[in-house]
Amino acid sequence: MLRYTPPRNERLERTLSLDISGGGAELNTAIGTACLGLPSTFISVVPDNGLGRWLVRSARAHGVDVAGIEVQPESLGRLGVYYLEEGVDPRPSAVTYDRADSAMARIEPGRFDWPAILQGAAVFHVSGITPALGAGCRAETLEAVRTAKELGVPVAFDLNYRSKLWSEAEAAECFLQLVPGVDILFAGKGALRTFFHIDGQTEDVLRRTRAELGVGVIALPRKRNIGSRGIRLSSWALGEGEIARAPWVETEIVDRLGGGDAFAAGFLAGLLETRPAPDAPIGSADLNRACALGTAASALKHTIPGDFLCATRAEIEAVAAGVEAGTLQR
Amino acid sequence: MLRYTPPRNERLERTLSLDISGGGAELNTAIGTACLGLPSTFISVVPDNGLGRWLVRSARAHGVDVAGIEVQPESLGRLGVYYLEEGVDPRPSAVTYDRADSAMARIEPGRFDWPAILQGAAVFHVSGITPALGAGCRAETLEAVRTAKELGVPVAFDLNYRSKLWSEAEAAECFLQLVPGVDILFAGKGALRTFFHIDGQTEDVLRRTRAELGVGVIALPRKRNIGSRGIRLSSWALGEGEIARAPWVETEIVDRLGGGDAFAAGFLAGLLETRPAPDAPIGSADLNRACALGTAASALKHTIPGDFLCATRAEIEAVAAGVEAGTLQR
Amino acid sequence: MLRYTPPRNERLERTLSLDISGGGAELNTAIGTACLGLPSTFISVVPDNGLGRWLVRSARAHGVDVAGIEVQPESLGRLGVYYLEEGVDPRPSAVTYDRADSAMARIEPGRFDWPAILQGAAVFHVSGITPALGAGCRAETLEAVRTAKELGVPVAFDLNYRSKLWSEAEAAECFLQLVPGVDILFAGKGALRTFFHIDGQTEDVLRRTRAELGVGVIALPRKRNIGSRGIRLSSWALGEGEIARAPWVETEIVDRLGGGDAFAAGFLAGLLETRPAPDAPIGSADLNRACALGTAASALKHTIPGDFLCATRAEIEAVAAGVEAGTLQR
Amino acid sequence: MLRYTPPRNERLERTLSLDISGGGAELNTAIGTACLGLPSTFISVVPDNGLGRWLVRSARAHGVDVAGIEVQPESLGRLGVYYLEEGVDPRPSAVTYDRADSAMARIEPGRFDWPAILQGAAVFHVSGITPALGAGCRAETLEAVRTAKELGVPVAFDLNYRSKLWSEAEAAECFLQLVPGVDILFAGKGALRTFFHIDGQTEDVLRRTRAELGVGVIALPRKRNIGSRGIRLSSWALGEGEIARAPWVETEIVDRLGGGDAFAAGFLAGLLETRPAPDAPIGSADLNRACALGTAASALKHTIPGDFLCATRAEIEAVAAGVEAGTLQR
Amino acid sequence: MLRYTPPRNERLERTLSLDISGGGAELNTAIGTACLGLPSTFISVVPDNGLGRWLVRSARAHGVDVAGIEVQPESLGRLGVYYLEEGVDPRPSAVTYDRADSAMARIEPGRFDWPAILQGAAVFHVSGITPALGAGCRAETLEAVRTAKELGVPVAFDLNYRSKLWSEAEAAECFLQLVPGVDILFAGKGALRTFFHIDGQTEDVLRRTRAELGVGVIALPRKRNIGSRGIRLSSWALGEGEIARAPWVETEIVDRLGGGDAFAAGFLAGLLETRPAPDAPIGSADLNRACALGTAASALKHTIPGDFLCATRAEIEAVAAGVEAGTLQR
Amino acid sequence: MLRYTPPRNERLERTLSLDISGGGAELNTAIGTACLGLPSTFISVVPDNGLGRWLVRSARAHGVDVAGIEVQPESLGRLGVYYLEEGVDPRPSAVTYDRADSAMARIEPGRFDWPAILQGAAVFHVSGITPALGAGCRAETLEAVRTAKELGVPVAFDLNYRSKLWSEAEAAECFLQLVPGVDILFAGKGALRTFFHIDGQTEDVLRRTRAELGVGVIALPRKRNIGSRGIRLSSWALGEGEIARAPWVETEIVDRLGGGDAFAAGFLAGLLETRPAPDAPIGSADLNRACALGTAASALKHTIPGDFLCATRAEIEAVAAGVEAGTLQR
Repeated sequence: MLRYTPPRNERLERTLSLDISGGGAELNTAIGTACLGLPSTFISVVPDNGLGRWLVRSARAHGVDVAGIEVQPESLGRLGVYYLEEGVDPRPSAVTYDRADSAMARIEPGRFDWPAILQGAAVFHVSGITPALGAGCRAETLEAVRTAKELGVPVAFDLNYRSKLWSEAEAAECFLQLVPGVDILFAGKGALRTFFHIDGQTEDVLRRTRAELGVGVIALPRKRNIGSRGIRLSSWALGEGEIARAPWVETEIVDRLGGGDAFAAGFLAGLLETRPAPDAPIGSADLNRACALGTAASALKHTIPGDFLCATRAEIEAVAAGVEAGTLQR
Repeated sequence: MLRYTPPRNERLERTLSLDISGGGAELNTAIGTACLGLPSTFISVVPDNGLGRWLVRSARAHGVDVAGIEVQPESLGRLGVYYLEEGVDPRPSAVTYDRADSAMARIEPGRFDWPAILQGAAVFHVSGITPALGAGCRAETLEAVRTAKELGVPVAFDLNYRSKLWSEAEAAECFLQLVPGVDILFAGKGALRTFFHIDGQTEDVLRRTRAELGVGVIALPRKRNIGSRGIRLSSWALGEGEIARAPWVETEIVDRLGGGDAFAAGFLAGLLETRPAPDAPIGSADLNRACALGTAASALKHTIPGDFLCATRAEIEAVAAGVEAGTLQR
Repeated sequence: MLRYTPPRNERLERTLSLDISGGGAELNTAIGTACLGLPSTFISVVPDNGLGRWLVRSARAHGVDVAGIEVQPESLGRLGVYYLEEGVDPRPSAVTYDRADSAMARIEPGRFDWPAILQGAAVFHVSGITPALGAGCRAETLEAVRTAKELGVPVAFDLNYRSKLWSEAEAAECFLQLVPGVDILFAGKGALRTFFHIDGQTEDVLRRTRAELGVGVIALPRKRNIGSRGIRLSSWALGEGEIARAPWVETEIVDRLGGGDAFAAGFLAGLLETRPAPDAPIGSADLNRACALGTAASALKHTIPGDFLCATRAEIEAVAAGVEAGTLQR
Repeated sequence: MLRYTPPRNERLERTLSLDISGGGAELNTAIGTACLGLPSTFISVVPDNGLGRWLVRSARAHGVDVAGIEVQPESLGRLGVYYLEEGVDPRPSAVTYDRADSAMARIEPGRFDWPAILQGAAVFHVSGITPALGAGCRAETLEAVRTAKELGVPVAFDLNYRSKLWSEAEAAECFLQLVPGVDILFAGKGALRTFFHIDGQTEDVLRRTRAELGVGVIALPRKRNIGSRGIRLSSWALGEGEIARAPWVETEIVDRLGGGDAFAAGFLAGLLETRPAPDAPIGSADLNRACALGTAASALKHTIPGDFLCATRAEIEAVAAGVEAGTLQR
Repeated sequence: MLRYTPPRNERLERTLSLDISGGGAELNTAIGTACLGLPSTFISVVPDNGLGRWLVRSARAHGVDVAGIEVQPESLGRLGVYYLEEGVDPRPSAVTYDRADSAMARIEPGRFDWPAILQGAAVFHVSGITPALGAGCRAETLEAVRTAKELGVPVAFDLNYRSKLWSEAEAAECFLQLVPGVDILFAGKGALRTFFHIDGQTEDVLRRTRAELGVGVIALPRKRNIGSRGIRLSSWALGEGEIARAPWVETEIVDRLGGGDAFAAGFLAGLLETRPAPDAPIGSADLNRACALGTAASALKHTIPGDFLCATRAEIEAVAAGVEAGTLQR
Repeated sequence: MLRYTPPRNERLERTLSLDISGGGAELNTAIGTACLGLPSTFISVVPDNGLGRWLVRSARAHGVDVAGIEVQPESLGRLGVYYLEEGVDPRPSAVTYDRADSAMARIEPGRFDWPAILQGAAVFHVSGITPALGAGCRAETLEAVRTAKELGVPVAFDLNYRSKLWSEAEAAECFLQLVPGVDILFAGKGALRTFFHIDGQTEDVLRRTRAELGVGVIALPRKRNIGSRGIRLSSWALGEGEIARAPWVETEIVDRLGGGDAFAAGFLAGLLETRPAPDAPIGSADLNRACALGTAASALKHTIPGDFLCATRAEIEAVAAGVEAGTLQR
């Protein structure tokens, strides 16, 4: 997707220019893992026009392998677009979607050769937005998860729900099908309550989610707003051992979008790198490290314009290590 | 008036570009009521050049009926301009006026046909700035108020004082003539103290103002600064019954100008819509509703660049209803 | 439609910002006639979001009556968008359409109440692009023309063909149905050749078109390119008398789009104003005047960014009168 | 004066931003001579606000001695402003003046201490615009010329006429008073015809002007337009000997304003530097050199945004020497 | 290298912002061949800071394989920068180099593992600028050419000379060493005259160059300026058969830089693709095709901001095929 | 130095434009004193190109006497540049230096004629950055201090240390040589601890510093961060009497750079103006006044983009006097 943002808090109906950036949950995460130095591939279809090429160029620039993005004739679908009005209290930031009939939304089941794509992958990550785009996307998501299982590729799933795309009932039906195949689940408390009726103290929610949904790891990002432009970020996760926690990171918001996807990127990197052995259970990795790296990536993302993280491994590690900010480096 | 603003907090003496927006207390209010869906007419004169057309275009774009703006030869006066330097603590935002000899300031008494203009209007609103512009403006303001009285059109007046335009003594003399014709008075505590020697607790000020000045409704916007960029907004009003109050709205400031004018717009809309009958006393309307709508309009104005409110009825109602902000809508 | 243009000749695939302007053949013409001081109404449907409001605001700002633009729920269709890459030789300017599933393209037959809309209109103008948008648009165009005929409202039609929207065969079938209802036909020689097999010297083409198609007036804009940025503009027309001609106007191109629509606006204004009587035949108007005004409007449009003409009557008249340009007015 | 320009050929009535640059005939010339390395002082009054400081800063940045610019209270007058719409054929570039009641226009006779200012100056230069601003400016211009004569400081005068400031009759009366004190006259053929009824072939005009008006040197800039953006520049001058001529310089126009003032700057520099002795007649200087330097400065000015020349001595000399352009220097 | 350009023809000494783009002869060519769909690798060293990453990102975005760009500590050298002032007649566009002590200029002999780099390459291309940067660059260039010879990889060399980097004598000495290893020589007539004393009619120059220097192919781009902004482009080349020629392409200049490098890219693509067999002599390829593709790529480059070509294969082929431009595609 | 800043918090590696401003500790201070109305001269060398002229122009625009800036051939050294990425928590603002081989860094000992430069100066100010640039700068700094001593010109020294330029050991050696010549020392507690092993309560640090280092006045700016964008500023100083203190000033940060240099400017102005007599000891001035003026200048600097203060004496005095901000002046 492309994201169009009126500059300087202007209203969409009145702006005379739009800033362009890229977006899309899985692409955001792919870019985040590329920032951390991991090889990262993004699977999608885009139209063969300037907008499709924009997305491919941007993914490539951020270090993502774009061999998996198919460029197809314009007649097979548009590139999805969304508009972001950046609000401040009491005006909410507002998204206007213009993603109907996108090339991705119109794919047919069987569009991707998942065995070829997933062979040798360290992890497969998908968000709850993709299956909401259409029947083909739904089928392909399930097929990808099934294939990953077969190939022994761990599956990560971000349980994010977009009410503008489908109803809670539709989403619930899909998520119920998906979750049994999931190894690493990213979810907020609201989504767990809505779709799996798991509620209560955060600790209990983590324990119940892992037990009831049968996932290897449940990771739960946490945040506290401090005015319109401030936020404190952390995350909790549960695998085989104790609940893991990232230290809170004081964050000032330049751009709120893509934070959750950057969290997933950092968390996955930390998990993959600390897993004792390639065939060790997912839940045996050092989840404190995964939480710290995920929260650091998310915090940095909030300080950077656009949906995409743009930071070096060293910068992310410095935040994860709690290196004091607010100081000029010179 | 046009407003010229150096971008990104730059000093006027050093900027190489200026952002243009429109301004003027009554136009701001007319645009605010248009946002709320009420028919709204603005009365003024502008020169027949690109600057005059700029203002007419902008008023029209924001939904104001511009039939009442007369476009006259440039030789009869310029378009007023003001420059706004946006400061942050401890540098105050600073206005440099360049409005001398404006077409409006130079109008002669008798310039407008008030009976024709006011016939059928739901309310006539004017600010304390207009009579400060010159003798013709002063005369026309008084004549308009007089005509409105005759026609049974309620008169709203915003008691704002600009020290760069006239002295307190001049203003006091004019305000004393105006206020007896006023039905709805917008005023801050400072202005009531300065011009009418009414001081004390806010409740008392409201009661004394209504009693001593004989206005049907007194509406008093309230604010508390929270740093340079934060503000809490509310308003109190008094009509026939108890003191009405709007809930406090936490607001982050994108642009401080035009907030009072948007408040007047929201308050008037709420008052007109809840007045029990067209001939019911002004003070019998639901002033809690008027306060809430006025404060919501003002709060939203603070989040939008320029003097003009640009928001839908639904957005204003959501703020008035206290819908939680700080959340991304998607 | 909205038009998105990468600034400064940048490629779409590489730009980080887009300039927004409005477009659409009939809206362009409506704005052109408004510039000339004629009352002008635009009929369309737009979604109830920031993009729909953008278009309404812009139409209103340019002086068009927007009462005929219906704002409907987003679910009924998007706002059409097109991207313009501004090329110079040998790189052609290129349009990327993103107008599929627009609110307008998805209208159902019977959507507009044409008798109410057309009652009292001086002329009804439609372009060949509108019926290309979909079956509903096609049906409504024919119905509008039929209604106009019944009400005695002259019909103007611009025979422009967009190959990206439909095939020549589809267009030909539609145009054959439409043209018998047309009083004033705007067409280039290429379209007349393609759709009506009329070819030859320009004089002959005009004569044969009027005779064979039975239109009251045929108006044919002419142009000669002078490099990438220069153009010479004129127009010829034929009504009841001799062939009318506008003097050639040397024009430097700032923005090539909307020129034909501005020509239609100027031509219609000239024709309506010089028609001997309200019920006189269309072809009896002073077509030399119509050509001059149309060419002047078109030439000025080429000097102004965006699809919309933005000029005063006096400026258009000055160009029509051949007032020498290239001189600084001070 | 400040100059406000809508960017990218936009119409003033529609622009949302303005580029700021400085202007004013004498300041332009002062900056031109500073570019050439000559000490250069500008005499004016400006208000004590951000706009006044803008002009002082800009003059200083360009190397002009600003000790002669008095900063006075805002109440004594505004800073003059003009708006430039940059047109291309057939839309003329258009100036909208907003300079009424400027600090300069409102000066009283006797405002400047000319003997102190002019003591030791190599030349005093003034344009025909200054006396058009008001009675005080007129009186001060005459007084300055009178004082210069007394002190033996050569007087240069640019016979430019602004019809928006005064009538031809008023200008003629003033110019007749001024010209007897002038040593170096800059004038176009149009102005010489209008104000002194001198007409004919350029050679004859030069000879008659020198003879009839009694000036030491008459310098006449020449230009031929080549489309909207091209121009060929030269100049002819007559002193004691033969008619001097600059070679034609092919010039592409980035900004048309200030070219004549830059010509005066270059011409004066060339004249002062080649005058055989400090007390030699003005007309005995090498006027071919003066013409070449003046035309080079003017040509370069046309390639630079804003009214002000911004070029080094070396760059101006290279153009004067006819060094081939169109080649990239690397 | 990075290129910093003051926007809108502003002078460097006065600009308040700089547009950034990338540059460097070999990178420009690598990007050009990537546009044409050929795999393309760029060999360089950059510092490990934001500027180094800028260049890597940009190369990657344009489709170049960046595995050959080494990111090394900042202390080993800066990233070269150059400033481009875009002039128009008579002001030349001017380059200010700030490339001293760049990481590339400071490399030591033996820095690159050429056998590994060149193994399997279809061609090795280098410009005359690289050996001018320093002794290490000179040694590495010679070593690369020697290694290519050994591996049977054809060597392309662009004989461009930068007088700001070294003297003609130094360059001549180096070029004499290089040319015997060259298979495809790109050169203008001026450079052939200066460094190899080959002069005369273009046909003779081509024949003598091929014969005397012993290169397989000599390709010579041709251009004719048409004012400041227009240019006609073609190219001639000589291999085993007759002199090949590209048709002239009328081109309007948006950005003059990188045209020669784009020519080399297009020419090499055409040559490689039409070479009868992988081991056929270079000179047996279809050089008319190579010329046409090279000139088309160069012409398109001139229409695009920055040094880098950004166009699709289809667009380049369309220009090579002489598809009529100047028409809007819609 | 020039400072290049990616706009709107963008990462350097991704930005397509850079905002330019000027910088350099001593120039910042010189501009600060010029803002306060004191004559102010800056001594440096710059290359004879557009970048060198940029700096000279900017210094001149801000009111600094530039006669002491020597413009020398480009071959003698570049103009230093630094890049500033503006971060917010937890991303630190980061400086990328590109100042190696600058003209200033490469000066030879004996480059400046200090007796001529310092004759008659009220104070000589230098920072700890200058001697870090190179051996020539170190020698010249010591020579300047020695000369100032001889001429009785008070020496002010800002003990700021840049770890990217030299080691602590190198700096310590130099500072030990310099400090005996210093009359007014600006230093933070960290630097005093690092270089002079003075630590403890602020009061004690002031007393020990004055006693042990033998400086006439020690001035110590103080700050407390309040989030990423807020800061409270004050300063303490010790001369002959009691410890002087500035009231805390709540400050919102627009730009963090140059604050310390502006403090030095304000402090020096206050000190020089309140010194009882030209030959009275430095320490006998009114240091409360100096602190207040310094802190006010620093606070205002934080609210202004770029390194340079841009404010009037009246504005600085208003902040020093604690005039309430946060209010719009109109």
